[in-house]
Amino acid sequence: MLAEIITIGDEILIGQIVDTNSAYISKELNKIGVKVYQITSVQDEREHILQAFKDAKEHADLIIITGGLGPTKDDITKQTFCDFFNDTLVEDQSVIENVKHLFEKYQLNKPLPANFRQAMVPSKATILMNKYGTAPGMWMEKDEIVFVSLPGVPYEMKHLLQEEVLPRVIKRFNRPHIYHKTLLTYGLGESAIAERIADWENALPEEVKLAYLPSLGKVRLRLSSTGNDERVLKESIDSRMEILNEMLSDIAIGYEDETSIIGRIAHILTQKNQTLSLAESCTGGAIAENITAEPGASSFFLGSIVPYKTELKTKILGVPSSIIEEFSVVSIEVAESMALNCNKLFATDYAIATTGIAGPTKGDGIDEVGTVCIAIATPDGVVSEKFNFGNDRYRVIKKTTNKVFEMLLKEISKN
Amino acid sequence: MLAEIITIGDEILIGQIVDTNSAYISKELNKIGVKVYQITSVQDEREHILQAFKDAKEHADLIIITGGLGPTKDDITKQTFCDFFNDTLVEDQSVIENVKHLFEKYQLNKPLPANFRQAMVPSKATILMNKYGTAPGMWMEKDEIVFVSLPGVPYEMKHLLQEEVLPRVIKRFNRPHIYHKTLLTYGLGESAIAERIADWENALPEEVKLAYLPSLGKVRLRLSSTGNDERVLKESIDSRMEILNEMLSDIAIGYEDETSIIGRIAHILTQKNQTLSLAESCTGGAIAENITAEPGASSFFLGSIVPYKTELKTKILGVPSSIIEEFSVVSIEVAESMALNCNKLFATDYAIATTGIAGPTKGDGIDEVGTVCIAIATPDGVVSEKFNFGNDRYRVIKKTTNKVFEMLLKEISKN
Repeated sequence: MLAEIITIGDEILIGQIVDTNSAYISKELNKIGVKVYQITSVQDEREHILQAFKDAKEHADLIIITGGLGPTKDDITKQTFCDFFNDTLVEDQSVIENVKHLFEKYQLNKPLPANFRQAMVPSKATILMNKYGTAPGMWMEKDEIVFVSLPGVPYEMKHLLQEEVLPRVIKRFNRPHIYHKTLLTYGLGESAIAERIADWENALPEEVKLAYLPSLGKVRLRLSSTGNDERVLKESIDSRMEILNEMLSDIAIGYEDETSIIGRIAHILTQKNQTLSLAESCTGGAIAENITAEPGASSFFLGSIVPYKTELKTKILGVPSSIIEEFSVVSIEVAESMALNCNKLFATDYAIATTGIAGPTKGDGIDEVGTVCIAIATPDGVVSEKFNFGNDRYRVIKKTTNKVFEMLLKEISKN
Repeated sequence: MLAEIITIGDEILIGQIVDTNSAYISKELNKIGVKVYQITSVQDEREHILQAFKDAKEHADLIIITGGLGPTKDDITKQTFCDFFNDTLVEDQSVIENVKHLFEKYQLNKPLPANFRQAMVPSKATILMNKYGTAPGMWMEKDEIVFVSLPGVPYEMKHLLQEEVLPRVIKRFNRPHIYHKTLLTYGLGESAIAERIADWENALPEEVKLAYLPSLGKVRLRLSSTGNDERVLKESIDSRMEILNEMLSDIAIGYEDETSIIGRIAHILTQKNQTLSLAESCTGGAIAENITAEPGASSFFLGSIVPYKTELKTKILGVPSSIIEEFSVVSIEVAESMALNCNKLFATDYAIATTGIAGPTKGDGIDEVGTVCIAIATPDGVVSEKFNFGNDRYRVIKKTTNKVFEMLLKEISKN
């Protein structure tokens, strides 16, 4: 069976926001065997929305629509729904109660008339109660095709999808199984990987698809297949992936969803009962942010220092100013001193240090924009490397972060 | 004139990546007066891509396509282009030279045959040379409609769009002016804002559109209009926005694109020659990352400490352990002590401290998940507040970050 996703909102078409809802919905539908045929973003305009509904109905059995359900005047999805289904808006008492309940729970002022307008819904719609916001979701059918309308606020959309939509989809439709598995690799480009695995790739059967997903120092390799027997499907993909993992054992770090590179690092450090600290200069908190975004980071991550100004490398981290003067602030010597001192200060087993020039200007440094030194202090000493990551600030920070995790994983896997 | 964007790639439709290219392209097209009618994401499938080309041709004068140009087998955009334009692939010498040049420049191994396959392009296409990757962009026309194909790697796509595509679009098409202006507000919900500005909103002329964009503690208000006289357009929107800014002066912080809340903070601190440091516990580096993502942050931001483990609040920041024992680690008292000590350690004018429980588990704390204390040490003392930001880790960190910037802006604007 096929689904389509329609996201409504001028803010998407003028590039004011990035549509993250579609990716989330697609991923969740895939997990239950629903293939997404197309994603379409349209304007807050009656005729355009109606046309999108009509087009989607040609291909899909299930159409999920997000956005346009706010209490303000620019939101017209509900009225357009009525036009499409030949329906009228009626007041729903359960939504009124929900609005009152939410305002009490979050100790807000009295609901305004606009808030109660959320209770006006198409009479034929099945209401999907929104526990986290005032706009309800709606489930409607026309000619055996299911239309689901959800609010555009990602948090509310996600809860409604999980709690109300997916269980109903599972009950309503027969679905095959879709199975993806993705291998994460660091440190080799996609063409070089393709050349290395050419024989294996050429021997893949028709129904198994391989995709290459390169980005800033890592390449993800995805195998996908669809079928009716979940066990056969899983065995076919898993066994092929095992061979691939073996062939790429020097660059592969594990499977996506089962692990991330931070997940692998967390697993190893926690098992060994070892700890990590950071001294981030040019990455300015990005490494810490990546680590602490994972729940449970506190079992191995003790903390971080961002000595953004050069003098703080001396004052807080204790890097001798003579080293900075002799070798410059972006140097292997300074990075190593930062890492070693950081390890002492936090009393950790491993400490990572970054110093570099993310750009666009040279800041405190004298080196080229994009120059980055990374050092890792370990229980046995310190390793370090100097790179040039180009002249785009965002990419320099991202590439440094990816390289740091690649180097750290290598170090902690050694003993 | 109207444009459409088509993004090609199974990875989008299975939710493995979020399509950020469309938002970027839409924003850039809008700036030069090109309205984006629709964004469509389709699979790596010949028939589907051809159908998308055909549909887009019905509405748009300019169709921009991204993705499917990689050197590996899963990428089929070029061949599909040939089918659509009734064309064949030929080898382009300039692309061969570019591949060689890139491999030399980045000191890579010899190019592989797959890399040289990038030089096979439709014979009717105008080649748009890609300085940052091996896949060239292509410009083709059919029945007066322009089709542009760009690689899906965001960095390469952005450079090609700026350097090759936009200048050609400006030359090729007559375009009206599109003007948006967006006011940023912090601390009041969209319904409450709508109620406050109802009279002003009702008096807006037909051609001026207002949109509300709420997210985690802030609401953006966008006015948009299209017309042929840029000056008249700009005056009409600017004057209305000034009135709105005045009406909402207690919650408005400025206009998007002209400023962000960090931009405002940076401007004020730099002008006053004042400095900032951070002690981030529950936000784990997210505030530092937000600040240092802006170029030029080093003019006021000295650095940050992330004392992720409780004992480090004492050891590195010098928070007396008696305070932690008496009031618990997530308390106003600990937050204030962290902020005051941070200000001393970094010798800054302002220091921000966060301590809280982002969840999903309670970590070192005894409080409810979502409890967050924020303190700001200022030249005059310290201010602080305790919040509950709910039970979703991502949202707790995001809401804390937004609230920190809101509180800091208030403090630094005082004197």
